[in-house]
Amino acid sequence: MGHEIVGQVTEVGSNVEKFKVGDSVGVGYLVGSCQSCDNCGNNAENYCPEMIFTSGAKYHDGSTTYGGYSNIMVADEHFVVRIPDNLPLDGAAPLLCAGVTTYSPLRYYGLDKPGMHVGVVGVGGLGHMAVKFAKAMGVKVTVISTSPNKKKEAIENLGADSFLVSRDDGQMQAAMGTMDGIIDTVSAVHPLLPLLGLLKTNGKLVLVGVPAKPLELPVIPLISGRKLVAGSNIGGLKETQEMIDFAGKHNITANIEVIPIDYVNTAMERLIKADVRYRFVIDIANTLKSSS
Amino acid sequence: MGHEIVGQVTEVGSNVEKFKVGDSVGVGYLVGSCQSCDNCGNNAENYCPEMIFTSGAKYHDGSTTYGGYSNIMVADEHFVVRIPDNLPLDGAAPLLCAGVTTYSPLRYYGLDKPGMHVGVVGVGGLGHMAVKFAKAMGVKVTVISTSPNKKKEAIENLGADSFLVSRDDGQMQAAMGTMDGIIDTVSAVHPLLPLLGLLKTNGKLVLVGVPAKPLELPVIPLISGRKLVAGSNIGGLKETQEMIDFAGKHNITANIEVIPIDYVNTAMERLIKADVRYRFVIDIANTLKSSS
Repeated sequence: MGHEIVGQVTEVGSNVEKFKVGDSVGVGYLVGSCQSCDNCGNNAENYCPEMIFTSGAKYHDGSTTYGGYSNIMVADEHFVVRIPDNLPLDGAAPLLCAGVTTYSPLRYYGLDKPGMHVGVVGVGGLGHMAVKFAKAMGVKVTVISTSPNKKKEAIENLGADSFLVSRDDGQMQAAMGTMDGIIDTVSAVHPLLPLLGLLKTNGKLVLVGVPAKPLELPVIPLISGRKLVAGSNIGGLKETQEMIDFAGKHNITANIEVIPIDYVNTAMERLIKADVRYRFVIDIANTLKSSS
Repeated sequence: MGHEIVGQVTEVGSNVEKFKVGDSVGVGYLVGSCQSCDNCGNNAENYCPEMIFTSGAKYHDGSTTYGGYSNIMVADEHFVVRIPDNLPLDGAAPLLCAGVTTYSPLRYYGLDKPGMHVGVVGVGGLGHMAVKFAKAMGVKVTVISTSPNKKKEAIENLGADSFLVSRDDGQMQAAMGTMDGIIDTVSAVHPLLPLLGLLKTNGKLVLVGVPAKPLELPVIPLISGRKLVAGSNIGGLKETQEMIDFAGKHNITANIEVIPIDYVNTAMERLIKADVRYRFVIDIANTLKSSS
């Protein structure tokens, strides 16, 4: 599909005010919304009931959106963000979805205060961004993973403060009641009870991964600790710009592997095996040959 | 047990500052806590890990707490609240648990703003208090119930603005996306999906009933609408006083049936059949005979 797209502006319409030819820009998961509902009015186009995804959706004019696997794209300036000059385009691309999907809940649920302790479940495209953003906000970060062999990477490369193996009851028990919030990026069905146990009173467990089936929700921990389980979906356009400006200020980019377009099928096979740290970025400009 | 207890002060210790003999006072579900942890420091004794329940718990001195089925009780003044003069003692008693259990989440989760729309699931001891408090806060209230025959009572007696039969798909469909929050007082296992559907973007579903088994949590509605499912457990002492002062100001009491002590076994049988509107209050003072 391609929903984390970066490039340079090659042409602007006569009413365009935000951009000029040559600007470095990005487009994320949204290319349209109604721009008249309450959510759109509150800069939350990502919750507009008529939002239009960047690929596989029906655009205002009835055409289908085809995403970023192309040498050129046309987008409404409202749905385009400016990439800060100091960020490399390739490493900035995944910020447009993976980045804002983790940045937004850290901000919205108030898990962005220096000195707080936030857990990040899963170290993948989303999880590694959650670690980087939370650290840049001054938060203490603990990565929670089923794989003990991700510890070195999480701490040394991503900058997490500590690491918990979720299958190690002793480690989990010792960390009970220590976290203000958790960003849970896991999209497989998994138990919430141990994660709720890690939270302090008033703690927040925010789901950004989408399991195929409903999860089991134990109610007593919610009530006895006034805890909550919540969700969050990408970010609005204003927030996406804010996120990427924050990334620019703190030199945050995604960890990526740049590939040529003719590698995409292999990349898909590797994706299924979770064999990528942490996002493939396709170098369209240098590798996509025109079919004409 | 008895955990919504009212009476008059008959004696005070030499260090007591808040009360004098003759004051009308109440004791709720808590008679003790550590008074040194973060939660106690934040007036949230109801989330203290060492909180002591009013009945069936071990008190600081090792004795067992016996609740309110007695002609006299001794309590630490910190865990005693003042009953406003204008409230009848009997109708005020259930405020001490049912009242604050619904008042607290309306306040904490910000569902107390005039013009908001809040749903209340279940019309019982907790639910009927939620309706009264939310209405007094200026909130539009919709009662959601499985029983269509509670509609008249909910609207005419309790003051709800509207009523939804949760088994009526047409009614539920028409109300989709209209509520800022829901106070769910049901303690049976029940589906959350239809309730999440009633919420607007950013809506909050707060559970105050305790089902015996985990509930099924659909994740997609949480993410696509940035909704949350949360819990709440009674209230702290400062908040309990605030709640009962608010009740005094707005003339809010529980709907009760006053019974003599020798009726308690019959009352228990009726409770099991949910045959009470909405709380039994035992008139200890006039009906409990001394055993000596």
